[in-house]
Amino acid sequence: MSRDARGPSIGPSVAEILTSHAGGTGSPTKTATRVADAIAARGDDGTWLSTVPRDQLLAAAAEIEDRPGARTLPLYGVPFGVKDSIDVAGVPTTLSCPDYAYVAESTAPAVQRLLDAGALYVGKTNLDQFATGLNGTRTPYTVPRSVFGGDMISGGSSSGSALAVALGQVPFAVATDTAGSGRVPAALNGVVGVKPSRGLISTVGLVPACKSLDCISVMAGSIDDADRALDVMIGRDDADPWSRNRGPRYDGATIRVGLPPVGDLEFFGDTDMRDAHLGFREHLAKLVSPTEVSLQPFLAAGTLLYQGPWVAERLVEFGDFLADHPASIHPVVRDILRSGEKYTAVDAFAALQRLKELTAEVGRIWDHLDVLVVPTIGTTFTVGEVLANPIGCNTMLGHYTHFGNLLDLIGVAVPLGVTAGGRPYSAMLLGPALGDDTVLQLAAQILDEPRSTTSAPLPATAQSSNLFQEHQ
Amino acid sequence: MSRDARGPSIGPSVAEILTSHAGGTGSPTKTATRVADAIAARGDDGTWLSTVPRDQLLAAAAEIEDRPGARTLPLYGVPFGVKDSIDVAGVPTTLSCPDYAYVAESTAPAVQRLLDAGALYVGKTNLDQFATGLNGTRTPYTVPRSVFGGDMISGGSSSGSALAVALGQVPFAVATDTAGSGRVPAALNGVVGVKPSRGLISTVGLVPACKSLDCISVMAGSIDDADRALDVMIGRDDADPWSRNRGPRYDGATIRVGLPPVGDLEFFGDTDMRDAHLGFREHLAKLVSPTEVSLQPFLAAGTLLYQGPWVAERLVEFGDFLADHPASIHPVVRDILRSGEKYTAVDAFAALQRLKELTAEVGRIWDHLDVLVVPTIGTTFTVGEVLANPIGCNTMLGHYTHFGNLLDLIGVAVPLGVTAGGRPYSAMLLGPALGDDTVLQLAAQILDEPRSTTSAPLPATAQSSNLFQEHQ
Repeated sequence: MSRDARGPSIGPSVAEILTSHAGGTGSPTKTATRVADAIAARGDDGTWLSTVPRDQLLAAAAEIEDRPGARTLPLYGVPFGVKDSIDVAGVPTTLSCPDYAYVAESTAPAVQRLLDAGALYVGKTNLDQFATGLNGTRTPYTVPRSVFGGDMISGGSSSGSALAVALGQVPFAVATDTAGSGRVPAALNGVVGVKPSRGLISTVGLVPACKSLDCISVMAGSIDDADRALDVMIGRDDADPWSRNRGPRYDGATIRVGLPPVGDLEFFGDTDMRDAHLGFREHLAKLVSPTEVSLQPFLAAGTLLYQGPWVAERLVEFGDFLADHPASIHPVVRDILRSGEKYTAVDAFAALQRLKELTAEVGRIWDHLDVLVVPTIGTTFTVGEVLANPIGCNTMLGHYTHFGNLLDLIGVAVPLGVTAGGRPYSAMLLGPALGDDTVLQLAAQILDEPRSTTSAPLPATAQSSNLFQEHQ
Repeated sequence: MSRDARGPSIGPSVAEILTSHAGGTGSPTKTATRVADAIAARGDDGTWLSTVPRDQLLAAAAEIEDRPGARTLPLYGVPFGVKDSIDVAGVPTTLSCPDYAYVAESTAPAVQRLLDAGALYVGKTNLDQFATGLNGTRTPYTVPRSVFGGDMISGGSSSGSALAVALGQVPFAVATDTAGSGRVPAALNGVVGVKPSRGLISTVGLVPACKSLDCISVMAGSIDDADRALDVMIGRDDADPWSRNRGPRYDGATIRVGLPPVGDLEFFGDTDMRDAHLGFREHLAKLVSPTEVSLQPFLAAGTLLYQGPWVAERLVEFGDFLADHPASIHPVVRDILRSGEKYTAVDAFAALQRLKELTAEVGRIWDHLDVLVVPTIGTTFTVGEVLANPIGCNTMLGHYTHFGNLLDLIGVAVPLGVTAGGRPYSAMLLGPALGDDTVLQLAAQILDEPRSTTSAPLPATAQSSNLFQEHQ
């Protein structure tokens, strides 16, 4: 297989897989064979850290076929990958740190719900070590590359989950997102990345990056595929103290969309990206009559994350390991973790107070807005560029994503195609907590996808929404 | 005036004052005269740190009388005091620390709403310095004593606000409550102390103790007086990021009451207090059919507060002053503030994660409970006892109050009379955020008070609720 493919090759959708399994043109074992072949054909490209061996995968698929009642399950025989910071019983959880790795005793509820829905677990995907990074290079395993070629970074930390979808191996993959880890790699590989409201998907069985902010997220080839995975994964879990009930389904009302003033946008000198995004905004403006909304309070929260004490929260989980095994940690990640040691509790409380102010300010914006649309990333980098400037590049990658979890937002990365220079661009749709279905509705509208999970009619404008064919 | 009065001498209620002002038997100036006389008669007993001079108070009362439309205002000419950590324009805010004091340029919105409702500002009340303490001894001014005599502490930090009400000088006073400061002194002086849900009353103009936990609260002689003050003080304020809307009014449903197992209760060897509280529980059990609810997750949160990093949050406000003027700070308060310097951001985030777990656990309790009833204080102390063991006594005083704000609860201290030994005892009614009106309803029922602010009928059991005449 060529490593120079220019863009994603999304494979069969969940709906297509279910149809083939139901109609007999396919079966879970045939799907398993296809997936095993596709992964084997790529060799070690840095997508997977472990996969279920072919014979075991086929046996698991056969078990699903033989399971009474399985054929009507919502994900009957649908293959998926899991970011390797989430536990699957009997499988090592590595966090891309071999010396940290352990074999999980139980399966994370979010994954178990997928298995219970008939889905076929394929393997564990690569990540920036300890989910600390947005670029994909911070792994002792093979450093993955974007499907857009040019030695571009895959993005991270959920690098492998994005690639497994972009390479057509699985229709969706489980990822995580604390500061953009589920959206940045989606943008860099031309797939959908959905970071739902905090607490909709249980984080039990996820090794925390920054526990108060961590979300389990989904990478998918389409909104429909993401919808189907989310509908299974979402559910209350009393063992997760952040757990909460899902918000209402989209009710058919006109979606109130905001756009920041162009002057608030930052592309770090990437004029191709700027042109592509502004072109998208022109199309969007025809579709949804957006209002102008300042990005400043959002960006201020992002600055708080990256220049503030939250990095210390990573030490709640990794502090002992850092003290005992510093040489086992990726040098860049190690330096980042150590930077958390300098913050005092006073720093933490002061930052939390400031965050409360910004959250209240942003909260008032949502009184008259459903979705804010920004770029997912302002620019892209090659692996070499990131290795030469690991902190600087990473901070640029997170410009539009850092603030999302701090402000309790939803974020959906929507792939829009390529810039004039052939690099991927992506829009991020942000919304207030529990407004997930409305944000997903606009995402589907932008991608010209009908949605099967809601029975509400599309708004009148939806019929003319086929704006972005190029991403397909 | 004797300083050995055994218990509170609650003065005219808000309703009585309004009636006298409306009927002509009284007037705001007559009320002002009475208040000025009563305060003057006591001399410096540690209740007030500053009062409006008599001539100015009479002039202010006359201004209210002459204000067009003032006679129909809900607090027309009703006198009140303000804890001296809250700004009133033109008046020093001292926080019981002369070297910290400054003259406020504007009036806190919570106080301004009272003024706008026709209330008469009388003066600033004493407090444990920087609102750091629950005992009332941590002031460089006169150390106040409980109205129950015996050289008992007033409780704190809102010592003066409790006393001003218990001495009959004002029908209500503005206080604050971060870890019990509005409830402990209420219990020690036989008055009602209402700590409403966080965010109902704006904290703008309050010098923060622990900003993420601070509430403005009310001391009053009755639930009705508290209701009337709260109805005026409550209101959204976009300048307070914790501001939120009031919850629903009590709807007449049966109030689901919980009591901890007796074994969960702690009286620190005070058998009189234990007997009194258990006697109250027997009466209450006949009235409301309580269920048993473990106090353990509540107490665990309290331990987190007093053995954890939140003390560092006080340094967000007072850290610079501590560094620059250590000799200006009360020695006990200074040691407490300094103890905040040892906590790291990792400690803070770890404690916040643990608190989230406890909050979720407690949240599930509220799914089937409206009010949890515990003692407000487990025992009482003399001033000498507290001075000999300032930290230990204070921790005991906060046993039932420390966790309230951390867990986002309502807390209402309800005076129940005196123990066999003649010391005050008090029940604390706890409820989930925004359930204020239901908690106040049960408090009124316990005190056999009709409530004028709700039109909903009392539950059927209310007719037989006159249980605790002795507190009157």
